[in-house]
Amino acid sequence: MENKIITISREFGSGGRYIGRLVAEKLGIPFYDKELIAKVAEKSGLAEEFVEKKGEYSPSKSMFAYGFVVRNNMGESLEDYLHSIQRKIILELAEQESCVIIGRCADYILKDHPKRLNVFIYSTPEDKIQRIQEYLGGNSEVEAKRMMRDMDKKRRINYNYYTDRKWGDVRHYSLALNSDELGLDRCVDLIVNAAEAL
Amino acid sequence: MENKIITISREFGSGGRYIGRLVAEKLGIPFYDKELIAKVAEKSGLAEEFVEKKGEYSPSKSMFAYGFVVRNNMGESLEDYLHSIQRKIILELAEQESCVIIGRCADYILKDHPKRLNVFIYSTPEDKIQRIQEYLGGNSEVEAKRMMRDMDKKRRINYNYYTDRKWGDVRHYSLALNSDELGLDRCVDLIVNAAEAL
Repeated sequence: MENKIITISREFGSGGRYIGRLVAEKLGIPFYDKELIAKVAEKSGLAEEFVEKKGEYSPSKSMFAYGFVVRNNMGESLEDYLHSIQRKIILELAEQESCVIIGRCADYILKDHPKRLNVFIYSTPEDKIQRIQEYLGGNSEVEAKRMMRDMDKKRRINYNYYTDRKWGDVRHYSLALNSDELGLDRCVDLIVNAAEAL
Repeated sequence: MENKIITISREFGSGGRYIGRLVAEKLGIPFYDKELIAKVAEKSGLAEEFVEKKGEYSPSKSMFAYGFVVRNNMGESLEDYLHSIQRKIILELAEQESCVIIGRCADYILKDHPKRLNVFIYSTPEDKIQRIQEYLGGNSEVEAKRMMRDMDKKRRINYNYYTDRKWGDVRHYSLALNSDELGLDRCVDLIVNAAEAL
C-alpha cells in the first residue's frame, strides 16, 4: 500500500501548523515541520539556525543581491544547496511512511506521489493578526501586521522561485480552507475526512 | 434562527451544479440554479432565454461595445437591470429560507449574511473536458476545450464587473475543493460537514 502524504501550505498566522499537528495525531502518523530542520541540518552540514531561517524564506529575488550570494564549486548558492537537500529528504520521507508535512514546497516536490492531499490554509487578516499577537511573537498590532506581510511575502518568493507555480493559487491544491470561517477543529475534521479519499 | 445559505461558485465542467444539488438534498433545503431564472424572468419582465444567457455572462468589458448597449431611462443597461433584479431575489431568498445557490455572484451579494458558507469548486482541465463532453454538450474535445475557456471567461468578467473581487481567488471563499482529486461525492460530504459550522 502506498503511503498517504498530506502537505499543508499555510498563510502565516492562519493556524495551519496547529491544524496539521492535530491531523497527524488523529491519523496516527508523523508530523514534519520544525522536525524536518534537524534532519536537513544533519544531512547538509548546515547549522540548524540557517536551515530554519532559509528553508522556506529564500532566495531574495533581487538581481542586485544575486552577486553577493555565497556559491559552492558547482555554482550553487547555499540556499539552492539547502533546497536540494530538503527536497531529497521530503522525497525519502514520502517513500518511508505516511506523514503530514508543513510548507517547504512539499506539495510541488511530491506532485507525482500517487496518494497525496495538498491543503492550503488561509484566514482573514484580523484573525491572523490576533493569532500572531497571541502565539507567534507579534508584540503589538503594528508588529503583527508587519510580520504577517513579511513572512507570507518571503514564503511566496521562495515557493515561486523553486516551483513553476504561484503560491496560494487554489488550483494547485486538493482543498483550501478558511480557518477563520470554519474554525481550526472543523478544518482538522475536513482534512481527515478528505484524506480518506486517498 | 438565521437561515443557512450555501453559495457555490464553480468552474464550468467541474461538477459544481451536481455537487450543489446533492448538498441541498442531503440538507433538505431548496436548490437554486436554473430555478432562479423563472423567478428573475417573472419579476423583471425579461424573457427567460435572456435571463439565462445574461444572468451570469454579461456584460462585455469592451468599451467599443459599451455604446451599443440598450439602456432604460435610468441610464441602466438591460444587463445591469437584470443584475439588480437577480440581486434582490437572492437577498429575498436568503431572508426566507435556508438554501443552496449556484453562481450569480451570490457569495458577494450575501457577504454580510451571518450564516453563509461560500464554496468554490474547481477541477483539472482533463476532468472538465471529459465532463463537458459527457454532459454539457461539447461534441468533440476541441469544442469542449473552447466551451471550458469561453464559459469561465464570461463568468469571470461578469463576476469581476459586479463585485470588487476576483473570481476564483480563494480568499473570498470559506472552502475550495478540487472535484477531480476528491471526487464529487466526497465534495458533497465535506460541504455538508462544513455547513454544520454555520
